[in-house]
Amino acid sequence: MSEHEKWMAEALAQAKTAIYRARPNPAVGCVIVKNDRIIGRGATAPVGGSHAEVFALAEAGEQAEGATAYVTLEPCAHYGRTPPCAEALVKAKVAKVVIATLDPNPLVAGKGQAILQQAGIETVVGVLESQAIELNRGFLKVMAGGLPYVRLKIAASLDGRTAMASGESKWITGEAARQDVQHFRAMSGAVITGIETILTDDAELNVRHLANIDLNQIVQPYRIILDRQGRLSLDAKVLQNPETVMVMTPYREDLVKLGVLQLPVQSLTDLLTLLKSQYQIYDVLVEAGATLVSSFLTEKLVDEVIQYIAPMYLGQTARPLNQLMFSTMQQRLNLNLFEITQIHPDVRLRLKPIYE
Amino acid sequence: MSEHEKWMAEALAQAKTAIYRARPNPAVGCVIVKNDRIIGRGATAPVGGSHAEVFALAEAGEQAEGATAYVTLEPCAHYGRTPPCAEALVKAKVAKVVIATLDPNPLVAGKGQAILQQAGIETVVGVLESQAIELNRGFLKVMAGGLPYVRLKIAASLDGRTAMASGESKWITGEAARQDVQHFRAMSGAVITGIETILTDDAELNVRHLANIDLNQIVQPYRIILDRQGRLSLDAKVLQNPETVMVMTPYREDLVKLGVLQLPVQSLTDLLTLLKSQYQIYDVLVEAGATLVSSFLTEKLVDEVIQYIAPMYLGQTARPLNQLMFSTMQQRLNLNLFEITQIHPDVRLRLKPIYE
Repeated sequence: MSEHEKWMAEALAQAKTAIYRARPNPAVGCVIVKNDRIIGRGATAPVGGSHAEVFALAEAGEQAEGATAYVTLEPCAHYGRTPPCAEALVKAKVAKVVIATLDPNPLVAGKGQAILQQAGIETVVGVLESQAIELNRGFLKVMAGGLPYVRLKIAASLDGRTAMASGESKWITGEAARQDVQHFRAMSGAVITGIETILTDDAELNVRHLANIDLNQIVQPYRIILDRQGRLSLDAKVLQNPETVMVMTPYREDLVKLGVLQLPVQSLTDLLTLLKSQYQIYDVLVEAGATLVSSFLTEKLVDEVIQYIAPMYLGQTARPLNQLMFSTMQQRLNLNLFEITQIHPDVRLRLKPIYE
Repeated sequence: MSEHEKWMAEALAQAKTAIYRARPNPAVGCVIVKNDRIIGRGATAPVGGSHAEVFALAEAGEQAEGATAYVTLEPCAHYGRTPPCAEALVKAKVAKVVIATLDPNPLVAGKGQAILQQAGIETVVGVLESQAIELNRGFLKVMAGGLPYVRLKIAASLDGRTAMASGESKWITGEAARQDVQHFRAMSGAVITGIETILTDDAELNVRHLANIDLNQIVQPYRIILDRQGRLSLDAKVLQNPETVMVMTPYREDLVKLGVLQLPVQSLTDLLTLLKSQYQIYDVLVEAGATLVSSFLTEKLVDEVIQYIAPMYLGQTARPLNQLMFSTMQQRLNLNLFEITQIHPDVRLRLKPIYE
């Protein structure tokens, strides 16, 4: 590991402290290093608060002059909710700025870096870039012009089954895997499910536990229920916090009165477009049954599959994890397996669908 | 790693060189250590040849006196095809013998150790024992009174499918995974399959390639075909080497003339019993379709499942990897996942079924 990587790893550690609270801002970390020592650290505060660089510079004080700043995302160049961080770094007279990844928005990419360079500050770009990208998948994808980053969570047996034919399913995966899902929920602006999952499991789909994290410090994801026939019951547990529930359903005054948001869209693509443009939701987790899972895959909207495999066989009459209808091998959906993690007693695979 | 573990690891490395050729003998390794240096090494020769200790002692010569011998299995105490190794160690006047695991046969267990102790040689037992056991699963299970050790190989997609509804299947797993299967075949005394696999894939089920191993130096496994209706064609590729083919089929003179062995058994349990008692086959690999896979699992005959998971979805109409019929979660077959290995682009899971 190079010197730059060593300090960028520290900046990434800072960024990780912000992934559950920064939304819709990206989670960014910054450390200021002088004489082989960290003299300032910072991470994105909840929305309306300061950016990572501001905290790090404040801690460093006058010592920042001549120091090197490590930031996990290109410092901003525009006046938004806060003044531009690139200018703050110039003002503090740091000598060098090391950036993990540039802002992907073509309108602003490179502008923060340009401000630094014009002020005579040396810049380095691309240190531990893939780790930095991993922390802000949705933000980076949307800023580059894409739809929200969609993670599809599947929990199935070794023979690809999610429940018995009767619907009986609790629990296939173990406690640790179910805990792990909470992390992906908490990283997401919204969790999308189908009405069947609500009717069968009375699922709440909120974040109920994160190790060492105060849940009051995080932004809970919206829960979005696709319910084309309007079957959602007012008794559903998910409605205990109606202000973070959105539905795709025929108009229901009873839900509106509760404060539930009704989304005026019909297709999954329109849903994702609306989420990004109107609600600044950039990361979405799909936790649904085989029907909705298959729709997201067939419409090529899934960026990442997170499949938990429980070491058990449920047999050939148990429910399949998808309803994809292929008749030839050529039609199959290939995925690229990029991460394998044992989450005792289960295993978690992370994969990227390869769309033709 | 302790001193003993360090040298036992060397003895295990020796044993590994014998796993494809030693059958029906166990693959054993031995190193003789003196003054922190290996002065003799050995591994089990093909049947009729010498045992590991004999080679190691021969290399060490008179230097063996006062040395420490590391052996992966308790030295034998009986006159079989070769004289007892325990006596050879006594004769060589080694000072100490470190043994990874005792012989599990209750009639001989501890006898080799006893000969050593009676001669005043210090013995240590249990160093890296689990690794030593892993190299001789079948031998150890049978010597302890059990049936042959049955490995069940499954290659399936992420959604638990092995082929399209039409039967189209080549190839689901990648080249590296298919190569990996060759290792398990070469470790086995027999590969068991069903006639459907022969009819569909014209499978040969022999060992065709092992990295850095001359195939002339290995013992090829028997190929056993379960064919209750006598459908095996004389054109089947598997019959290109008829002398290593066994069939469970109604009597067929054409096969007998070819030199194919006809097994006079009806049940899988009887088959396994016959293999161990009459053919000294202790390790069996099942590579079969969903029907036979389900029979082996239902009859609780599988010791280990080796499941290769290919990163693809084949859809809900594709063929399931088993035909187990369970209607409640309670009936499910649980397994203990004990090893996860990425075999690009696939993943290999090794699991032990947990029979109630």
